Amino acid sequence: MKSTEQPVTGAAFALDPQLAHDTLVIGDLPLSRVLLMNDANFPWLIIVPRRAGTAEVFDLTPADQMRLMAEIARVGELLKEVTGCDKINTAAIGNIVPQLHVHIIARSRSDAAWPRPAWGALPACPYDEAARECLLAVLRKKIPG
Amino acid sequence: MKSTEQPVTGAAFALDPQLAHDTLVIGDLPLSRVLLMNDANFPWLIIVPRRAGTAEVFDLTPADQMRLMAEIARVGELLKEVTGCDKINTAAIGNIVPQLHVHIIARSRSDAAWPRPAWGALPACPYDEAARECLLAVLRKKIPG
Repeated sequence: MKSTEQPVTGAAFALDPQLAHDTLVIGDLPLSRVLLMNDANFPWLIIVPRRAGTAEVFDLTPADQMRLMAEIARVGELLKEVTGCDKINTAAIGNIVPQLHVHIIARSRSDAAWPRPAWGALPACPYDEAARECLLAVLRKKIPG
Repeated sequence: MKSTEQPVTGAAFALDPQLAHDTLVIGDLPLSRVLLMNDANFPWLIIVPRRAGTAEVFDLTPADQMRLMAEIARVGELLKEVTGCDKINTAAIGNIVPQLHVHIIARSRSDAAWPRPAWGALPACPYDEAARECLLAVLRKKIPG
């Protein structure tokens, strides 16, 4: 781990177990781990700043806030390019999983939940293996692992 | 309008009519207009970058993205201080109102929708006049008008 990646608390970053259970790892950006939600209803990424003990955006240092915004913009634009979606939905909610994580979801006017927000709208539908590996390969080519 | 506030398109910024209808104006930060949703279910702010023709975070220039993140963090921290809430929910969705706007919502374990996201969870409940003016006064003291 590089010194710039040391969390302020000194504690080591560990991905929340619920996030680890629900997602597949795409790779790491300078600040955040990038995950794919295992839910074929929507192309749905989650980025998690690798900083222990962080629940709110304003818990990050100002420099990390800027890194997070750059990564939100980069991942959102990339997901729009890859999917050709109509809208990117971006959110840090965290009412259930307290570790700061940002949802970046590709939404289409033709998806089953449109225009409602994605959270809780549909039962999760895991990818079949071929679709999952194909999407992961495309995303890993664009996001350094 | 200062030259740094000119939108890239040259078109003048105008608040989306639906946002104008649903909210009360608190004031302007360097980039964004800050609004209070007229819904007493949750203390719910919306910040809108004053840039015409912007739908996605990545439509903003990198400098404006950084300004937006600073304003998200500032407004979220302030809203947590003012309300003593348990969690700030932050989101740019825009499936219905295309103008880029960021929800910043104070959530409490005791609110009627917890832990579900706020959007669509409860029928909107407009503030009574006294409560609205009191909350606006508190917020306007902290956010320059």
